[in-house]
Amino acid sequence: MAADMEKVNRAILEHMQSPVALIPQLAGHIVASGGKRLRPMLTLATAGLCGYTGERHIGLAACVEFIHTATLLHDDVVDESDLRRGKDTANAVWGNQASVLVGDFLFSRAFQLMVGDGSLKVLKILSDASAIIAEGEVHQLVTTNDITTTEDAYLEVIRCKTAQLFAAAAQIGPVVAERPQDEELALEGFGRDLGVAFQLVDDVLDYAAEQAALGKTVGDDFREGKVTLPVILAYQAGDEAERTFWKRTIEDLDQRDGDLAEAQRLMVGHGTLEASLDRAREYAGAARAALARFPANPYRAALEELVDFCVERAY
Amino acid sequence: MAADMEKVNRAILEHMQSPVALIPQLAGHIVASGGKRLRPMLTLATAGLCGYTGERHIGLAACVEFIHTATLLHDDVVDESDLRRGKDTANAVWGNQASVLVGDFLFSRAFQLMVGDGSLKVLKILSDASAIIAEGEVHQLVTTNDITTTEDAYLEVIRCKTAQLFAAAAQIGPVVAERPQDEELALEGFGRDLGVAFQLVDDVLDYAAEQAALGKTVGDDFREGKVTLPVILAYQAGDEAERTFWKRTIEDLDQRDGDLAEAQRLMVGHGTLEASLDRAREYAGAARAALARFPANPYRAALEELVDFCVERAY
Repeated sequence: MAADMEKVNRAILEHMQSPVALIPQLAGHIVASGGKRLRPMLTLATAGLCGYTGERHIGLAACVEFIHTATLLHDDVVDESDLRRGKDTANAVWGNQASVLVGDFLFSRAFQLMVGDGSLKVLKILSDASAIIAEGEVHQLVTTNDITTTEDAYLEVIRCKTAQLFAAAAQIGPVVAERPQDEELALEGFGRDLGVAFQLVDDVLDYAAEQAALGKTVGDDFREGKVTLPVILAYQAGDEAERTFWKRTIEDLDQRDGDLAEAQRLMVGHGTLEASLDRAREYAGAARAALARFPANPYRAALEELVDFCVERAY
Repeated sequence: MAADMEKVNRAILEHMQSPVALIPQLAGHIVASGGKRLRPMLTLATAGLCGYTGERHIGLAACVEFIHTATLLHDDVVDESDLRRGKDTANAVWGNQASVLVGDFLFSRAFQLMVGDGSLKVLKILSDASAIIAEGEVHQLVTTNDITTTEDAYLEVIRCKTAQLFAAAAQIGPVVAERPQDEELALEGFGRDLGVAFQLVDDVLDYAAEQAALGKTVGDDFREGKVTLPVILAYQAGDEAERTFWKRTIEDLDQRDGDLAEAQRLMVGHGTLEASLDRAREYAGAARAALARFPANPYRAALEELVDFCVERAY
């Protein structure tokens, strides 16, 4: 798949051009900054799995990455009241307005490319996904700082904000290959389960001490008061004093030196990071199972590897 | 057209619903806040002008308004360094992140509705328009505070950020009516010229003393350092001391009490507000001329009234 992925990268670079120089500059910053290209890879691999031999999956994989990049840029937008994160985000360099507008450009460009492709079915899949992603992001915004968020509400948020684009990316393969609807549904479900597993692991990594040892940032979610599964489970398992701690740090965002370490200690004590990873493994298992009906070929192997990667990066 | 516009309003309300309550709340704030619905009216009137008797123009007019509303919400996003405007923007009430995400939702919803309508041609018109609008907004961001912006660069910005959606809205009428391409081009051009005239007048009104007398806000553009035509012409006509004034206030955003009044005094002295309105009248005249080929019926009369309204609201 390396040759196809190289074509996707070229399509991305080609279509993010604009006479307004700030657009390729800013888009290039985020597109080039070590993205894993997981979502376009899903489109390429599911297309291959379904025996597709054309070229449409290249441009559509680029569309998927553009939509993902637009949501990243829009996620970077902060409010004045927010703690500034230490990261070198596009936002920190160019400001809120540029991040929003360049995100809008990439989003519009994705729809232009889909129109050029000409499939109303693909347009439906990705416009539906975009609306659901936005709903999920707003839902997350509303639950931020709400320590009583339930596990179900959290799962619903990540199904929308993360897993929907994985599902859409994986569904495009069987659609361009014109496979029957049951294969479409199977691969859509595969993408959704993979996406949930991916986000669960992501949320765990934000508290994983090993990450800090590797020089990666931890604690972003904590500093923003995001209520993720490790927090939900720790709050539920906590005694009165611990709940007071969570309310102060997550609800009131009243955080002091050592609070992140204390949060990690409580999570380890109640095994909530491990429990969250167990949940991720369940979703990963379901994703793997959905592939069983397809022929065992290099594309299926690549998708299985992708599932393993999403879960194993936690170790 | 009142009955059709009522249907558009119902379509807007219906399609901005979401189980995430903040979405209709925030969208309702901006949709309800006295918008003039100029753009959907263009779609309705050009459809009628072209003899269209179906119902597709209703939903597509709502799409146009959703795209417009999304850009308004995204325009509201501010940077920490920005002066806070006194307005009760959605942003001031709910914050940057909510404005961005609800804008994304409305934008996605517009594409969902277009997919439901099923015309790749309409999808092309509005995805092209959206990309061009975003380019225009980024271009404007780059020219903000640049007092040496040329009149041509300014006109290019407003053709993109404002007139493109007017052009698209006006083009949708002949498209749904399946009229020949020359009518499409004529009405697209009509919309573009009208949009340029509209924005020129808007930029003049931001400095018009009469507006302040009516209790409307003036000086927003000045405070943000936006370089609009009245400023460009005043800078070009100014002597050394005046240019120093413009550089201090617009480039350096070093503004003091009385600076807005001084800006207005300089504009009146050099006649730049009147000159900008003359330019608007030229574009309005071109727009009106584009209608001459169509039958003189109530729809054409409505479009002519729209042109008059756009220019005469300056008085």
